[in-house]
Amino acid sequence: MVVKPVISASGLLKIGDLLRKTRRFSDLDNMDYSKLTHDSNPLHFDVECARNAGFEDRIVPGMLIASLFPRIIASHFPGAVYVSQSLQFKLPVYVGDEVVAEVQAVHLRENKKRYIAKFSTKCFKNGEVLVIDGEAVAILPTLTTNEEQST
Amino acid sequence: MVVKPVISASGLLKIGDLLRKTRRFSDLDNMDYSKLTHDSNPLHFDVECARNAGFEDRIVPGMLIASLFPRIIASHFPGAVYVSQSLQFKLPVYVGDEVVAEVQAVHLRENKKRYIAKFSTKCFKNGEVLVIDGEAVAILPTLTTNEEQST
Repeated sequence: MVVKPVISASGLLKIGDLLRKTRRFSDLDNMDYSKLTHDSNPLHFDVECARNAGFEDRIVPGMLIASLFPRIIASHFPGAVYVSQSLQFKLPVYVGDEVVAEVQAVHLRENKKRYIAKFSTKCFKNGEVLVIDGEAVAILPTLTTNEEQST
Repeated sequence: MVVKPVISASGLLKIGDLLRKTRRFSDLDNMDYSKLTHDSNPLHFDVECARNAGFEDRIVPGMLIASLFPRIIASHFPGAVYVSQSLQFKLPVYVGDEVVAEVQAVHLRENKKRYIAKFSTKCFKNGEVLVIDGEAVAILPTLTTNEEQST
């Protein structure tokens, strides 16, 4: 599934604008995350351990999936500075699942020639199953979006 | 600085127990994070861009630093399942800064032979400067801690 971002025709971020990114995480992504973060939780590598814990398969680390949110924001607003993020991990994402991350502007405020933006941040898998819910606040250098071809 | 974890002598997690991990993030870590997450925010690579935005140097991605929290929890409780995480990014962490991540148990509840644990999650840099504040909730398969030599 390729989903185009929904953003104002002006190219200026407005409340309600929605930015999306689709991704499937692989075994290799899980391994690269483990090498980078030194997190070797067996739920991410060991099918048997994952099944014993009640999962269908190896799960993708929640923080790896959640990295889609700052990635979406930074790709549209290079130089964006992250202020906060809340994350509710509602359901597991398995290796190979298609994940759609959505970032929607819910509040915008100008401050010292920069913009403080609050976003609703959600991830869905396999269509419309909500797997991560939360909010992020970022400082944007401009409201003009970078013309990235999001998918 | 090497900081030993403060945990009950019994090896059973109790309210107030503190788990710590110290780390410095390098340029290579920033690059590996960018490759893994496809986040190419120039604040993480470009000194000039970072300085123009008011920072002293390239900053480490907040979500990369925050990955210390599930890493600490999973290393002491393999098979832990993350439920939620809140993150307030209070001050920048620069490449090379020493970061101490602290995870402290603030609430524990048994549920269906597992344990729902709420942790205070904080990161400090260069001693006692609070850079990330928040809370995490995780489901632990046991309260018996894995004997990892945390530093």
